[in-house]
Amino acid sequence: MSARGGVDLGGTKIQTVVVDDSHAVLGDARGPTPREGGPAAVAAAIAEVMREAAGAAGVDPGTLTGIGVGSPGLIDEDTGVVRGARNLPDWQGEFGLGAALTDALGPAVKVGNDVQVATDAEFALGAAKEFDSLLGVFWGTGVGGGLVLDGRPWLGRGSAGEIGHVVVKLDGARCPCGRRGCMEAYAGRKAMEEKAREEHEKGKKTDLFKLMKKHGHDRLTSGIWSRALEHEDKLAEELFERAIQALGAGVASAVNLIDPEAVIIGGGMGVRFGEAGAERIRAAMMPHLFNDSDPPAIRVASLGDLGGAIGASLLVASPS
Amino acid sequence: MSARGGVDLGGTKIQTVVVDDSHAVLGDARGPTPREGGPAAVAAAIAEVMREAAGAAGVDPGTLTGIGVGSPGLIDEDTGVVRGARNLPDWQGEFGLGAALTDALGPAVKVGNDVQVATDAEFALGAAKEFDSLLGVFWGTGVGGGLVLDGRPWLGRGSAGEIGHVVVKLDGARCPCGRRGCMEAYAGRKAMEEKAREEHEKGKKTDLFKLMKKHGHDRLTSGIWSRALEHEDKLAEELFERAIQALGAGVASAVNLIDPEAVIIGGGMGVRFGEAGAERIRAAMMPHLFNDSDPPAIRVASLGDLGGAIGASLLVASPS
Repeated sequence: MSARGGVDLGGTKIQTVVVDDSHAVLGDARGPTPREGGPAAVAAAIAEVMREAAGAAGVDPGTLTGIGVGSPGLIDEDTGVVRGARNLPDWQGEFGLGAALTDALGPAVKVGNDVQVATDAEFALGAAKEFDSLLGVFWGTGVGGGLVLDGRPWLGRGSAGEIGHVVVKLDGARCPCGRRGCMEAYAGRKAMEEKAREEHEKGKKTDLFKLMKKHGHDRLTSGIWSRALEHEDKLAEELFERAIQALGAGVASAVNLIDPEAVIIGGGMGVRFGEAGAERIRAAMMPHLFNDSDPPAIRVASLGDLGGAIGASLLVASPS
Repeated sequence: MSARGGVDLGGTKIQTVVVDDSHAVLGDARGPTPREGGPAAVAAAIAEVMREAAGAAGVDPGTLTGIGVGSPGLIDEDTGVVRGARNLPDWQGEFGLGAALTDALGPAVKVGNDVQVATDAEFALGAAKEFDSLLGVFWGTGVGGGLVLDGRPWLGRGSAGEIGHVVVKLDGARCPCGRRGCMEAYAGRKAMEEKAREEHEKGKKTDLFKLMKKHGHDRLTSGIWSRALEHEDKLAEELFERAIQALGAGVASAVNLIDPEAVIIGGGMGVRFGEAGAERIRAAMMPHLFNDSDPPAIRVASLGDLGGAIGASLLVASPS
């Protein structure tokens, strides 16, 4: 029985897994993404968290048949070079992430787009197993997207899937990416938090920030949004509905264009709000769907927190 | 040398061609789409216009190796049944267009989506010959779209490519399709005319309708828009710019999602405004492009008025 590694590299945390030939998780580990030291420090931290997962699985990391990494930024899949990973500290330029990890751990390393590998995981093993074409919508800090068409990942010229930056409102709200009117400007957790702060500072009542402090957070996590909605906090409900309307329009636009069999809703917010959230997105899509007599299936991602890392491990799986 | 037929079935006209094995046009003909008599009358008119093209080519229509038809509506490619062709008179339900044409003319008939076959033609023979993936944007009465991905038409579950109904403005203008905020609600020639009429009735000065009458039209054709812009008509420039901004946002959204090598701009308006129009669309896309350091090629469709019919003839071409 051989084992492979998978790494989900995020802006705040690194998640690793060791899986067997049938994709079962033998061990996993998690650690914070270093805020200092640039790409080299991030690579060292990944190697350390990978060693932990290997330890938990009872295997020597040097014996893994390969390690897959899902990374933000622009990826060269052939060389393992990552550039412009703006969510990561001091990573505007290029860094040979694949080579650095092979140096540290031994096995061959393959790097892919974080959102695409999570989409591939849902396609191969998760909520989209039964479909041949799908749009993955990862609703979290930002909104990422991935495509599988005719059973294969569709990457375009390397940067397909940016559903968060589909325009839903000409001359609309400023997006964290700097552009105007992107879906993410309304629906990304980060943009939602900025808007909440702005409205709160203008005098709108809300318990969002009280709840944040009470639960020991320094940002409005999906859990805080969920609690505020349970408490029927008016501003929270208003901004959540605004996010849902943007998701409905943006996802419907994508469906009008690509007409996939299924849409998978994942990400921190997507998984937190689960079936109820997916149902609200579906309802918000309907007025914009061109072929509204036959909408695609809408499913919540089923692989949970490990989905990204398991998806990354698929980058180095033997063809089955 | 064998010959094939191609038919472009539009809301106002039927264009037919007869082509040889190397896709050269041997003969072509054009006639009006009947406004009465429903699908059966349309089929009879297609047969008649096809006979004319065959006559011009000097071949017996019965000897054509096949006839391809590009049709609006929802197409079943396997059976040649077309339903819900709302641009055509009394064609809400189903009609076996392929079978009716085989009965009338003899050869096997294959029916495909009108916009998709025009996209395929630009891919195989026109402005996108050098590319492997492309988005076709057919800017005319409405705005249609077609996709070629990895060298093959992408139809989704049968209704992919509806770029005209990508949402560019939440709670925006009413689209001829009945929905709100679609790109076509701003950029479709029909929607532009409705808006111009509305503004004119409200008292805005414009020569658009004078020019229309002077040139003997009953609608604002692309030629009339072109003349009004040459005359620096303020309302025309305002509505044209509004259309360009919507096209920029909608096409950029599609590019962010699919990341194709090329975007081909065709259709009556697209071809009329040519390189200058494509340049304005390109400029309007840039602020919305996520990967703005590497935009796709933007080209004007090169097959002109016969593109749709030639594309339809590809449906029955022998594999090369």
